[in-house]
Amino acid sequence: MREVGVGIAGFGTVGGGVLSILERHAKDIEARLGARIAVKRVVLRDASKTRPVEVPPALISTRLEDLLEDPSIEVVVELIGGVDQAFDLVIGALSRGKHVVTANKALLATRGEEIFRLARQRSVDVYYEAAVCGGVPIIRTLREALASDRISSLVGIVNGTTNFILTAMAERGEALAAVLAEAQRLGYAEADPTLDVSGGDAAQKLCVLAQLAFGARLRPDEVLTEGIMNLTPEDFRWAREFGYALKLLAVARRCDEPGPGGQPQIEARVHPAFIPLSSLLAGVRGAMNAVVLRSDSLGPSMLYGQGAGAMPTGSAVVSDIIDLTRNILSGSPGRVPLPPDRPLVVLRPHDAIRCAYYLHFSVRDEPGVLARIASTLAARSISVAAVQQREQADAAAPVPLVFVTHQARQSDVVAAIAEIDRQPSTLQPTRLIRIETV
Amino acid sequence: MREVGVGIAGFGTVGGGVLSILERHAKDIEARLGARIAVKRVVLRDASKTRPVEVPPALISTRLEDLLEDPSIEVVVELIGGVDQAFDLVIGALSRGKHVVTANKALLATRGEEIFRLARQRSVDVYYEAAVCGGVPIIRTLREALASDRISSLVGIVNGTTNFILTAMAERGEALAAVLAEAQRLGYAEADPTLDVSGGDAAQKLCVLAQLAFGARLRPDEVLTEGIMNLTPEDFRWAREFGYALKLLAVARRCDEPGPGGQPQIEARVHPAFIPLSSLLAGVRGAMNAVVLRSDSLGPSMLYGQGAGAMPTGSAVVSDIIDLTRNILSGSPGRVPLPPDRPLVVLRPHDAIRCAYYLHFSVRDEPGVLARIASTLAARSISVAAVQQREQADAAAPVPLVFVTHQARQSDVVAAIAEIDRQPSTLQPTRLIRIETV
Repeated sequence: MREVGVGIAGFGTVGGGVLSILERHAKDIEARLGARIAVKRVVLRDASKTRPVEVPPALISTRLEDLLEDPSIEVVVELIGGVDQAFDLVIGALSRGKHVVTANKALLATRGEEIFRLARQRSVDVYYEAAVCGGVPIIRTLREALASDRISSLVGIVNGTTNFILTAMAERGEALAAVLAEAQRLGYAEADPTLDVSGGDAAQKLCVLAQLAFGARLRPDEVLTEGIMNLTPEDFRWAREFGYALKLLAVARRCDEPGPGGQPQIEARVHPAFIPLSSLLAGVRGAMNAVVLRSDSLGPSMLYGQGAGAMPTGSAVVSDIIDLTRNILSGSPGRVPLPPDRPLVVLRPHDAIRCAYYLHFSVRDEPGVLARIASTLAARSISVAAVQQREQADAAAPVPLVFVTHQARQSDVVAAIAEIDRQPSTLQPTRLIRIETV
Repeated sequence: MREVGVGIAGFGTVGGGVLSILERHAKDIEARLGARIAVKRVVLRDASKTRPVEVPPALISTRLEDLLEDPSIEVVVELIGGVDQAFDLVIGALSRGKHVVTANKALLATRGEEIFRLARQRSVDVYYEAAVCGGVPIIRTLREALASDRISSLVGIVNGTTNFILTAMAERGEALAAVLAEAQRLGYAEADPTLDVSGGDAAQKLCVLAQLAFGARLRPDEVLTEGIMNLTPEDFRWAREFGYALKLLAVARRCDEPGPGGQPQIEARVHPAFIPLSSLLAGVRGAMNAVVLRSDSLGPSMLYGQGAGAMPTGSAVVSDIIDLTRNILSGSPGRVPLPPDRPLVVLRPHDAIRCAYYLHFSVRDEPGVLARIASTLAARSISVAAVQQREQADAAAPVPLVFVTHQARQSDVVAAIAEIDRQPSTLQPTRLIRIETV
């Protein structure tokens, strides 16, 4: 039986999942592929560490070069994470004509261009289903759909850690710090949760997705990114009051108007957002992930599943290995093309983004305040959809005054808030949360 | 440029969608495949009829044989529907070494076995993404996942017509007849809606899905099938009272215990069900479709999208044509294997199915009735999770007495109800709706 040799670099949670899935399903895979997928070598940092999944000692190495130099390895699986060392490994593999499977979104978001270029030159494949939303087959869907459909928007819950935190805040009314501590205890959040709670992880994923969906070429730092650290239990109470859930969304959307040079434009942003309680994304709870696509032919569609974890992510890696093996066996690398080699769209300036907004003003309880705020908004063409003012028991406390606006330009909203926040009747900085209808 | 010839049989809604997607995306498809997909012939019943999508006159024929006899046609797209004529066409195509794309679930559910056998013998492919839930890529997901995962259950809303009706009944409190008439007016239901409202269409789809997910070989008439025609506005009120939505589900689930001969067993059933309001399927509204899979590696996942319509279903057909074209160009037919050629599981007898139930008794308001019903249930090992009795203004009217049970064996529930319905204090036949936690 034909054998396809695989080398695995990095053996943390996901590596363990990959090896155990390959072992457990070896017979099924052989029966269905007519070939054996043989793990030839596993490179890990510390060979002496004991691990939940046992690696046969003969396969273990601590030298990444072993993967590159072994001619029996046709597929290199990069699971070491980080950018520099992973980049060298992937480039080394591609330049030797080896196919690559990677779960490394940071690598693809920052150096994907060079990687895909080399893969095209060498006629080898790069698969990366596990890089974004582990158990959700969004990469495959985008790669295969692209030839015969046109995606107009992509809205996702792509970070399980923050969705776990926001779900707990919404359902239990607790403060973020308490819920974050719990998430860390349960292993849903890292000891240093910055990458997740800042929205940075979601921005990296959005770059990878927007490249496939729109042919965009974005760096994570170009994505409008706001994290969840400033959200309060009160925001969740107001959300429910207006019929919304509060989620951290990653949004990429084709704009109607072309850019200054006539090129098609997209928006790309990651931020907390109010979404209708009746929307499917509002029902995505805990650490689950989901992506809603809208496209010309299919209309709305959604993929939902576990975003992380040994088995879901391991399963995504294995599905890539199987796909690659099918391509190798049939002599058809590049069967599904890589992202386009030049950008097809440009990024719309964030200032020009139009959204509906929830604006929460904290003001002194005195005559004329409401009128002043309303006219400041009106002067910037910000049209009001709903207003609510709560009676306060304590007359000295700031009065919460909440506006829900129609779609408005970001620069107008920012300017209006700056002006309102300078007024002496404004007691605390205004809180702003975008509203998405999904 | 290499050209792959396609012949289309049947030119209704879906055929129009296929042709317009192929035309609109011809350039993208060529760029990404490096080949042209050329529609060589369109066979339709009435060449004189005008259609929303124009077919170039040179392509039109009324003879199905034209598709079979044209050697330039490598892919036959079967969109004529029905079983007998479609079967002859598909068999004719396969036996001439042509690949087949079909959107015909009735054909696959009843004669899939013969079709797949011939395709295997002739080393050609049969693709059928459009046969089940048009715009939801469930067939592809099941075909590709099978090699490295083990599915434990599949629960879906797979019929858009009934989901449209049930959504309207739930949201507006109207009776089924009124909502059905509206669905017919809007084109969501056929003039003769029997196949949809009886659950028969969903049962056909479940057969196709269960074959891929479990290696089952089921005929639609073997699926436990109950339609929606007996549902009343009151059922929806009770559903909400207990925190449930009411949906028509298609369920296939691996059983823990093996069958009498030691073979693995599955349940297969289509029926209205109470599902938790907080579940994602409860949020699937209108004519949308969704399928929830549970599998060893991925855990829970869901695919959601439009189940029908020219463009979603046409898009599914085009994605199959593109996949086939990729296989043809790379000389790799059978890249993803067809369903297994012998059944891997047997069907568990419906009597042995275990579910939780909502039981609605209509009884005389007199002492001892509640006790009698409770003890009849207890005698059959049916354990009660919740009971509710409503006060009636009219003392002569039957009292509604509602039980929610824990999991119980279907044969026990049926027997208990038969016994209770024979009691003189029971004024109307007992209503029964299964409860799924999804």
